[in-house]
Amino acid sequence: MLNFDHLAVNQQGHLTIGGIDTTKLAQEYGTPLYVMDEDKIRSICRMYQNSFKKCYHGNGMPLYASKAFCCKEMCRIINEEGMGLDVVSGGELYTALQAGFPAERIQMHGNNKTPDELSYAINSGVGHIVIDNIDELKMLDEMAGKLHQTVGVALRIKPGIDAHTHQFIRTGQIDSKFGFALETGEAMRAVKMAIHAKNLKLLELHCHIGSQIFELQPFVLAAQVMMDFMQQIRKETGVTLPELNLGGGFGIQYVSSDNSLPYESYMEKVSEAIGQKCKEYDFTEPKIYIEPGRSIVGEAGITLYTIGTVKQIPNVRTYVSIDGGMTDNPRYALYQSDYTVIVANHADQPANQIVTVAGKCCESGDLIQKDAPLQMCKAGDLLAVLSTGAYNYSMASNYNRIPRPAVVMVHDGKTRIAVKRETYEDLIHNDL
Amino acid sequence: MLNFDHLAVNQQGHLTIGGIDTTKLAQEYGTPLYVMDEDKIRSICRMYQNSFKKCYHGNGMPLYASKAFCCKEMCRIINEEGMGLDVVSGGELYTALQAGFPAERIQMHGNNKTPDELSYAINSGVGHIVIDNIDELKMLDEMAGKLHQTVGVALRIKPGIDAHTHQFIRTGQIDSKFGFALETGEAMRAVKMAIHAKNLKLLELHCHIGSQIFELQPFVLAAQVMMDFMQQIRKETGVTLPELNLGGGFGIQYVSSDNSLPYESYMEKVSEAIGQKCKEYDFTEPKIYIEPGRSIVGEAGITLYTIGTVKQIPNVRTYVSIDGGMTDNPRYALYQSDYTVIVANHADQPANQIVTVAGKCCESGDLIQKDAPLQMCKAGDLLAVLSTGAYNYSMASNYNRIPRPAVVMVHDGKTRIAVKRETYEDLIHNDL
Repeated sequence: MLNFDHLAVNQQGHLTIGGIDTTKLAQEYGTPLYVMDEDKIRSICRMYQNSFKKCYHGNGMPLYASKAFCCKEMCRIINEEGMGLDVVSGGELYTALQAGFPAERIQMHGNNKTPDELSYAINSGVGHIVIDNIDELKMLDEMAGKLHQTVGVALRIKPGIDAHTHQFIRTGQIDSKFGFALETGEAMRAVKMAIHAKNLKLLELHCHIGSQIFELQPFVLAAQVMMDFMQQIRKETGVTLPELNLGGGFGIQYVSSDNSLPYESYMEKVSEAIGQKCKEYDFTEPKIYIEPGRSIVGEAGITLYTIGTVKQIPNVRTYVSIDGGMTDNPRYALYQSDYTVIVANHADQPANQIVTVAGKCCESGDLIQKDAPLQMCKAGDLLAVLSTGAYNYSMASNYNRIPRPAVVMVHDGKTRIAVKRETYEDLIHNDL
Repeated sequence: MLNFDHLAVNQQGHLTIGGIDTTKLAQEYGTPLYVMDEDKIRSICRMYQNSFKKCYHGNGMPLYASKAFCCKEMCRIINEEGMGLDVVSGGELYTALQAGFPAERIQMHGNNKTPDELSYAINSGVGHIVIDNIDELKMLDEMAGKLHQTVGVALRIKPGIDAHTHQFIRTGQIDSKFGFALETGEAMRAVKMAIHAKNLKLLELHCHIGSQIFELQPFVLAAQVMMDFMQQIRKETGVTLPELNLGGGFGIQYVSSDNSLPYESYMEKVSEAIGQKCKEYDFTEPKIYIEPGRSIVGEAGITLYTIGTVKQIPNVRTYVSIDGGMTDNPRYALYQSDYTVIVANHADQPANQIVTVAGKCCESGDLIQKDAPLQMCKAGDLLAVLSTGAYNYSMASNYNRIPRPAVVMVHDGKTRIAVKRETYEDLIHNDL
């Protein structure tokens, strides 16, 4: 099992999360079920906050990347922790505002925000709109003018750093749908345009180099590249930009071979690099934002499933079928992502068989994990998949018209529902 | 463009579907928008029905595989066409029943039906429950006994046919989460168990060899293998099973290089093969079911998007960003599926650029198509993706909290909403 402090095995041999027996959670709330340890989430938020204080005089703020896991309750937690929020759509913005999240602490991303989303963001007073492209820059300036507002903006820059991760989740390099390229001069043209735009106030440069990254060097490199660019901007325009957003991408542990770094080390190294560049260029230290998403919620969440059948195909494979699958966790189908699986009601047993965990969708590709070690099990046992807090609920679908599971939060030895389980009635809610 | 009779280009150079100008559809209903040609759907249903009459004395029925596209309106259409329905979950069954679909014409599939789903199917009077595994067989017999019912069942058999398609959508071979293997003797053991089960009536054998298949030979082979197995069953048990379900998997045209066969040829060849086997074994011809899904709705549907920005990266790639993406069509992200894209308001122009169509999700893998030919275009133009009627709406998610598009049906020169567009309010409906 993964060595997480919020997971343990009790005397009955049952997996616990935040001290709560997972078999009791399954009994009370049914399966499939997402369970999140709120204390773990809050402790990581505080760690990020503290690392800003410790390494960077508190001159900045972590923004939770809500696309990792977005619901009203999560926005409330982030608000209570005093962090900011990164949203990528009108729907995420709506969720945050409905949860009472202050708009000025929200930054809005997206490679293709619609006019409706942009006007919604302006009218809501979103703190920063992160402009992705020239079409958007022009449209936003025009819209802000019509609304007699000055909008605080950032520009998304491709720093040209390739963080050696799965090709689907690479985003810093030049061949990307996101942002303005440095190399081609496009980024500088956009900066000048934004500086001269009547109704925009350019506050920030933004970059994001990828996802699930296990090294610090690419982050340090990106920070240096961005500081060099800020210096170049000052030279060419006389403007010193006050803020820098270095995005997210910090890797978490899905399986024991994932060497995730202590997240504190990030601000330590990056602050150092920025400090040096500031000395070199005689800059006041810019306000820094970072955008952790997966690293805040990923390890905090597990998914509980009931095993429906175990199919041993001699000399071929053993399929363990669960009552969920790609509808609640499409990451194996999409990226062949690694996960740790465990029989939650026999968590004290050795994982001495190799199995393929299959979902219940009518599709062969509906697998949660292939060739994974697992405890011996049978129909009726409880299966836990670990580190499912990020990009599981948020990516869930109703494929095969399967209702999405509930999300339960565990806090201080108590449990509560954060998102209700979908019902069959919900599925036909928009059917005429 | 694909040579479909329901799509055309009008004098304004606009793409039309069922005679309706797509730019008018976009104006009236907004984008992104799924549009389905109901007349096309019905014509394919009738073609399947007629091929049963013509080639097999009408002794059987096509069942629409509703997982391809399931909503109440679609179930009504299938009911009006007198076809049966294949459902794979309680949610699909619920949708069908709410649409007034007669339960006796429904067959229920699934590699891991939950106890709730099984009792729901029994209580609703579903015509056939297709048993996938021994655990399920035992559970179903027990449940039927408790409910004092005899349940009509089928057994899902792996015929060992590999139909040479994408590995994710192979389902006939022995290494599959679905069904009972012939080779290992498991299938015969299950047949004997089902015959002797007190509360089950074994009516049918079922097989399904894969998806998006362009050859007839694998289907003919599967039919022969199944007939041989029915003969073996008669030999070993004295029981002649009255029904055979040969599944679906008929390929459609996504791009012009897809050589889809006339669907009539399927029943022609398969009927021939079954006829021969019946002679050989002195069998009464079994009642035949087939389960077309994709081939009924796939080509009938298109998706309309508004282009938000066109990003030309010199010597690298041109990204055309649309206001939807992997949330409404995850098939490129999942399988790198081919699609034909067209600028719907300049459909008369030559497709003389090569572009990558990117969605609006905050994820690099959110592409609809890579390196596809497209008409010249700019922000504000309307993009159509063809052949999106199957596995698009049904697989859609709310990733990035993006609401799912509406589905509009075109019929007889008129349009109507079949599924309403999701609202922001819908997104937080279950958030506490």
